[in-house]
Amino acid sequence: MCGVFGAFSASGNPVLEEVYLGLYALQHRGQESAGVAWIDGENQIRTIKGQGLVHLALNQAELSGIPASSAIGHVRYSTAGGSGLSNVQPLAANYCRGPVAIAHNGNISNASGVRRYLENRGAIFQSTTDTEVILHLMAHQPHKTELDALVDSLRKLKGAFSLAVALKDRLVAARDPWGFRPLALGKRDDVYYISSESCALDLVGAEMIRELDPGEILVIDTDGLHSLRIPVEPRRRYLCSFEFVYFARPDSLIAGQSVYQVRKELGRRLARRSPCSGNCATGMPDSGTIAAMGYAEESGLAYEKAIVRNRYSGRTFIEPTQRVRELGVRKKLNPIRELIKGQSLAVVDDSIVRGTTSRKMVELLRNYGASEIHMRISSPPVRFPCYYGIDTPTREELAAARSNEEALCAEIGADSLAYLTETDLVEAIGLPACEVCTACFSGSYMEDGEKYEELDI
Amino acid sequence: MCGVFGAFSASGNPVLEEVYLGLYALQHRGQESAGVAWIDGENQIRTIKGQGLVHLALNQAELSGIPASSAIGHVRYSTAGGSGLSNVQPLAANYCRGPVAIAHNGNISNASGVRRYLENRGAIFQSTTDTEVILHLMAHQPHKTELDALVDSLRKLKGAFSLAVALKDRLVAARDPWGFRPLALGKRDDVYYISSESCALDLVGAEMIRELDPGEILVIDTDGLHSLRIPVEPRRRYLCSFEFVYFARPDSLIAGQSVYQVRKELGRRLARRSPCSGNCATGMPDSGTIAAMGYAEESGLAYEKAIVRNRYSGRTFIEPTQRVRELGVRKKLNPIRELIKGQSLAVVDDSIVRGTTSRKMVELLRNYGASEIHMRISSPPVRFPCYYGIDTPTREELAAARSNEEALCAEIGADSLAYLTETDLVEAIGLPACEVCTACFSGSYMEDGEKYEELDI
Amino acid sequence: MCGVFGAFSASGNPVLEEVYLGLYALQHRGQESAGVAWIDGENQIRTIKGQGLVHLALNQAELSGIPASSAIGHVRYSTAGGSGLSNVQPLAANYCRGPVAIAHNGNISNASGVRRYLENRGAIFQSTTDTEVILHLMAHQPHKTELDALVDSLRKLKGAFSLAVALKDRLVAARDPWGFRPLALGKRDDVYYISSESCALDLVGAEMIRELDPGEILVIDTDGLHSLRIPVEPRRRYLCSFEFVYFARPDSLIAGQSVYQVRKELGRRLARRSPCSGNCATGMPDSGTIAAMGYAEESGLAYEKAIVRNRYSGRTFIEPTQRVRELGVRKKLNPIRELIKGQSLAVVDDSIVRGTTSRKMVELLRNYGASEIHMRISSPPVRFPCYYGIDTPTREELAAARSNEEALCAEIGADSLAYLTETDLVEAIGLPACEVCTACFSGSYMEDGEKYEELDI
Amino acid sequence: MCGVFGAFSASGNPVLEEVYLGLYALQHRGQESAGVAWIDGENQIRTIKGQGLVHLALNQAELSGIPASSAIGHVRYSTAGGSGLSNVQPLAANYCRGPVAIAHNGNISNASGVRRYLENRGAIFQSTTDTEVILHLMAHQPHKTELDALVDSLRKLKGAFSLAVALKDRLVAARDPWGFRPLALGKRDDVYYISSESCALDLVGAEMIRELDPGEILVIDTDGLHSLRIPVEPRRRYLCSFEFVYFARPDSLIAGQSVYQVRKELGRRLARRSPCSGNCATGMPDSGTIAAMGYAEESGLAYEKAIVRNRYSGRTFIEPTQRVRELGVRKKLNPIRELIKGQSLAVVDDSIVRGTTSRKMVELLRNYGASEIHMRISSPPVRFPCYYGIDTPTREELAAARSNEEALCAEIGADSLAYLTETDLVEAIGLPACEVCTACFSGSYMEDGEKYEELDI
Repeated sequence: MCGVFGAFSASGNPVLEEVYLGLYALQHRGQESAGVAWIDGENQIRTIKGQGLVHLALNQAELSGIPASSAIGHVRYSTAGGSGLSNVQPLAANYCRGPVAIAHNGNISNASGVRRYLENRGAIFQSTTDTEVILHLMAHQPHKTELDALVDSLRKLKGAFSLAVALKDRLVAARDPWGFRPLALGKRDDVYYISSESCALDLVGAEMIRELDPGEILVIDTDGLHSLRIPVEPRRRYLCSFEFVYFARPDSLIAGQSVYQVRKELGRRLARRSPCSGNCATGMPDSGTIAAMGYAEESGLAYEKAIVRNRYSGRTFIEPTQRVRELGVRKKLNPIRELIKGQSLAVVDDSIVRGTTSRKMVELLRNYGASEIHMRISSPPVRFPCYYGIDTPTREELAAARSNEEALCAEIGADSLAYLTETDLVEAIGLPACEVCTACFSGSYMEDGEKYEELDI
Repeated sequence: MCGVFGAFSASGNPVLEEVYLGLYALQHRGQESAGVAWIDGENQIRTIKGQGLVHLALNQAELSGIPASSAIGHVRYSTAGGSGLSNVQPLAANYCRGPVAIAHNGNISNASGVRRYLENRGAIFQSTTDTEVILHLMAHQPHKTELDALVDSLRKLKGAFSLAVALKDRLVAARDPWGFRPLALGKRDDVYYISSESCALDLVGAEMIRELDPGEILVIDTDGLHSLRIPVEPRRRYLCSFEFVYFARPDSLIAGQSVYQVRKELGRRLARRSPCSGNCATGMPDSGTIAAMGYAEESGLAYEKAIVRNRYSGRTFIEPTQRVRELGVRKKLNPIRELIKGQSLAVVDDSIVRGTTSRKMVELLRNYGASEIHMRISSPPVRFPCYYGIDTPTREELAAARSNEEALCAEIGADSLAYLTETDLVEAIGLPACEVCTACFSGSYMEDGEKYEELDI
Repeated sequence: MCGVFGAFSASGNPVLEEVYLGLYALQHRGQESAGVAWIDGENQIRTIKGQGLVHLALNQAELSGIPASSAIGHVRYSTAGGSGLSNVQPLAANYCRGPVAIAHNGNISNASGVRRYLENRGAIFQSTTDTEVILHLMAHQPHKTELDALVDSLRKLKGAFSLAVALKDRLVAARDPWGFRPLALGKRDDVYYISSESCALDLVGAEMIRELDPGEILVIDTDGLHSLRIPVEPRRRYLCSFEFVYFARPDSLIAGQSVYQVRKELGRRLARRSPCSGNCATGMPDSGTIAAMGYAEESGLAYEKAIVRNRYSGRTFIEPTQRVRELGVRKKLNPIRELIKGQSLAVVDDSIVRGTTSRKMVELLRNYGASEIHMRISSPPVRFPCYYGIDTPTREELAAARSNEEALCAEIGADSLAYLTETDLVEAIGLPACEVCTACFSGSYMEDGEKYEELDI
Repeated sequence: MCGVFGAFSASGNPVLEEVYLGLYALQHRGQESAGVAWIDGENQIRTIKGQGLVHLALNQAELSGIPASSAIGHVRYSTAGGSGLSNVQPLAANYCRGPVAIAHNGNISNASGVRRYLENRGAIFQSTTDTEVILHLMAHQPHKTELDALVDSLRKLKGAFSLAVALKDRLVAARDPWGFRPLALGKRDDVYYISSESCALDLVGAEMIRELDPGEILVIDTDGLHSLRIPVEPRRRYLCSFEFVYFARPDSLIAGQSVYQVRKELGRRLARRSPCSGNCATGMPDSGTIAAMGYAEESGLAYEKAIVRNRYSGRTFIEPTQRVRELGVRKKLNPIRELIKGQSLAVVDDSIVRGTTSRKMVELLRNYGASEIHMRISSPPVRFPCYYGIDTPTREELAAARSNEEALCAEIGADSLAYLTETDLVEAIGLPACEVCTACFSGSYMEDGEKYEELDI
């Protein structure tokens, strides 16, 4: 998964520190690398990129001293292309019409075919990311203005893309016609911001104006905002439901819905559909916490934060050696023995992917003396890989793809296991079913299950 | 504040990776620097130290490859001495009797006088930490065995010290006679562990055997455990109450009490003593969360996680430039607008130190549309600096030292403000009042308020 | 200026350490950056590059552990394109036919036009080097084999290029039809080497087989050597005379001539043409040393190493601050007072470029008590910039372009100044005049003085 | 071996950049590490140290911005104590009288005993260098002024020490009573300099005033120069003859003698004593070059620079892997084939230590076609280790200690081998024999061969 952020000051104020802060607020969307890009006074692209968390990859003090009034940024967790430095975004190029830099959230599902097409016309690719095809599509239309080349490039793409694009004197935001990934527009004083999530607008003190429409291309320059459309008419929308279940921050608004409130509603519906006989409800931190609160509220169980999360973990914890691993170290999560012993627990999590974490936690809770353990999952079973930007494992590795509920319950060792239904999920989100992507639960892909289709450029 | 950890394998297994993991679990006790020390096969002290969080300061893979069967570690937040690299612990020295390394949690209150005494007898100090006096006291007793020199050095010290000491073929743990800071002993298979908090024993899969007694010196060698006492008879004990209020992790046990349950009880007592008319209760993340749950439970208010904490913050966020700061960025904490608007809120925090954070949060909540804001603090007013290892500001900077409750309520802009009483605090901890240090609330210091006294060595 | 090196082991032995050693021997040809490239077992290009001297830019131990049996390397002093990391060679690309990496010594004089042509056909350039046009020319001929695409790309280029090219399973060496820069072929056991200078073949213990012909493309694969020709018929050759005067190492052979012996002959001819009345001859270290020995031998003057060069200088010495500079520090060269005082000196240097060094040295020698100073230059006056790979300043900065000999002698403060003639230079080299480039002395460029000409691709 | 440098500006000008430049000029005396130290405005010692060459270990730009008007510096090649960072000089300490920093060239031969004595009185040593005893000796005399403590510490030491010492408001230079290592005083405008060699005074544009006397302690403060004496009366002097043979730079003056001219005279005397039938004389670069010129001059042989030294080598070349080493790479030195083939050569070197270099060079010259090879050494055989600061191997490794001349000639494969006599060496230096140390040739040590003697403090 990834996050993009952009800022444009019409009156020429420096914005790179705000892009840094925006990326910091979007850190949960990608911890593998971070980068920023802008076009300097001599019309040259400048990029600063690094591996790891934002504060390690980038230097706030350095950025705050750079006089760029328009800039974009990106946090990355690799989904397409490997994790090498050449794949760290924003990607940038000087082509014959000038400089361009792109930050991309999503996954272009026909990128592979487009790349082959372009390479046979002389293109040399520098990265293995899907994003780079946009730069080469633009470069192969040298007779068009940069903006026309960009629009005509985006119409050749399928799949998910929310983009922040830096051109000379302009910042461009774009969202694919299917509306997979969110993208919001904010403003504070003379500065416009674009952000994958509204929480990052809060961080920089901006008001959210609105979210971009699917298929919208929004151009920001010193004259203000100009809106274009990608000339593709999709049959329906595919807003990612997993953003609500797990990915987005609870203080973000997506499609007008509060992620926190959706998540709590998921817990309430789960309690109605799958009650249990426990003494108290607790959540797997942090992703199951809010649904657990909804579950407790609806079911009348006591709510306890019975599992503590080391708040310094994250991507910072490498696997211990075999010898130490066998000791059963509690890397990230540690239950509180006094709250577990002799209790019957409802343990709420947002999803089960490989099943490993659930199995280990159940074992640990039993060791700590839990009498019963009821696993409650605030989404349907994840049975299908995502081709639109979320890093899911292959189908063989997905626990729910290889086992039914009963078998999986036995596998993880719980006393009971229950999921939410797809209908409950869509209703909790509050949008028509034809606007929400549930492909990872249902297998109903935009392209009807085909990952790559014929190239039509 | 600081944290110490030690491990000793009687059968010669390597333990440095476990020390790394232990420090990782104690990360909340010090984010400024981290280090480990051991004595190698040639009787040489080896130390690895670095700035910043454990995973940045130390390299887990490197440590896992080192064949040390006895080692100590330290995480530091500087309280005495500056933050330079020479002050990063463990401190180590080769003196005429051999190698010794020390990791120290606490603050030696007569260190300054001891240091002057030693310098006039030829000692050259390498750091500005209080800890270093222990090394020089040992070196000035060359006729005694290392262990005797250590014991006779500790008897000359006042104040707080929980120590992990590496000697040749021995690991020594020690706790000052007043019992300021916690120190626990654990075991797994052939390995003994000492740790500032029991949560780190959980991480490495060890069972907690017991806590060290105040004044105990515990020697671990291949023969097992041997217990000595520092020959000082204190009039009473001074276990730090602020460990329960704020510092320790909720999944730790201190003096046999669950920190989580003490913290929740603080919230309940606060609700009984200072109820309010709000719609819902929320905590300042993360330190006020558990007390807020207790407050909600006792008062019958709904509990909501209405303020989101960026889980990637920590010590990673440097102050933005003045221009950006004025924008009012939500660095670490962001309220969820949908849960705030039009609500009357009880906001629970563990303490008010300078008052800045509270004032900013109240202002932010008002901007987000809160109708009433009732601040509830789960400890008494912090009016006095700590001389025993907690980094409190000077008295002038302490909000409760310069304003009474009414004035402070106005200063932070809340509709009401209420604190817990000292009696409630001590009762919630569940120990006799004569065993708990409440100096930061009451000013009742071990030395009756004198920071440094006459040297008696 | 730059240097290239390549190695190919027919029996699959690793060669990267030998490429490292080769670059080390070619260090004098470029101290700004260094890099190596090879194609790994999965048909992926791998490059390692760095700034500064070879031993800083690359890690010998790391290279020795990589199992590449064919590899190229490059040392760079930027002449075309800036000094940024994107310009460090070897340049590499994956194009539709596969991977290719290029190391280039020389300067392609029509690169600018070719680049514009390619950008208008969709090419995105990643660097500002002239070398990159070769990669894009190849990528725009996707229907041809890699080797055909390379040959047909080189025929479109003018100017100087000695290349080492890594293709899958093949190492290719190429030399421009005009023969500007040297390129030698060596062999040891199963390994073929290509090198800018023969001294690097000595370092790796290889025998020099022969030099490449101008216009030759030499393909090395497991079947051995295959020779092709660039289908361009030049009117004459242009072997760079400045390689003999200054650039090449004295232990190299170029066009069959010993650089040491040519340089000594330059000194002898200079003595015959411009004798002087001094007591002893000395050289400006290190470039004037050998010619000074020839001058002393022919003129009968005593030879002394009267000026000492700090052997740790090089590119390591940054300019001191203004205050310190005014003190007249002897950064690189220090005369020996006892050998200077009261002496009449013939000071031999290879050339005068800006004149600054000569002026400072004359002043310093006078301060040390020299009675007379006769500057003797072992080449003709440098009056014209080089467009073929040597980093000369603009014409305005060239001392001999703005002053005649008499004026220049006054400017540098010498008692007399004399140069060698072009005829003497060519005769000392021992090749026909129509094979030697003397453009920097005579202004007779290959393109008759035009830097860039019409593009004919 | 090591080098020291110090600078003191009476009018408060910053001097650290000049110390940097001074160390740069002394680089040949130590390439392992470098450091500087000064006492700042708050009476705190500041040190900057690093591994490797001066320009890598220190940052000239950083130093030039520091307002220190008195500072010392050091370049190190470890002779006593290992090469760890704790041993990098200057060593510094804050003791009860204040700050002190020391840079030391030489080797204190009774350091081991002094250290044991001090440790038994409570001293904790931080390094394994002999130099640190001076700091602890001072700290154990807390009742004396710093200067008195320094003088009374130096009188307890035996062996070689040329020191630069930074005290508050004072720079102190000192030279041991035996005068082993050189130490010169210079001046430019308001700044006094002390330097191991006079060549570094040239670099900073200073005039040499004089050399320090053996046993002199020179105090430099704002009042000017004050001279004290170490109250020890040595029976004779021991100026190191190897400084003239090999170590010092040719442009330095030691004991009033030009190193260049002494070195040339060594070559002349070698030619008179051991002529040979060769065609030409050449030197092993760089150490044998000047003696080779003297040899050629006296013998009438032609002088050629027939062996080329890669001027980028130095400490930068790590050993290649076994496989590559067997290829016989010419790491540092490459003969010029055209000058070797069929020639009978006199090859002059300054000394033979282990014999390996000579053996390899003889083999290489034979491979290049030399008809006869006559090794001529411009010093007597090195048969004894140095205890006074030069890094010689153990006696077993010294070629001349295990073989006589005839056997050694056979071992290195030369046609003849001849050394200079000790008498010739002393006469060429031009000092009385009772003032020159020839212990490495003769075994006549200051302490009659005992490395460590009874402690008399």
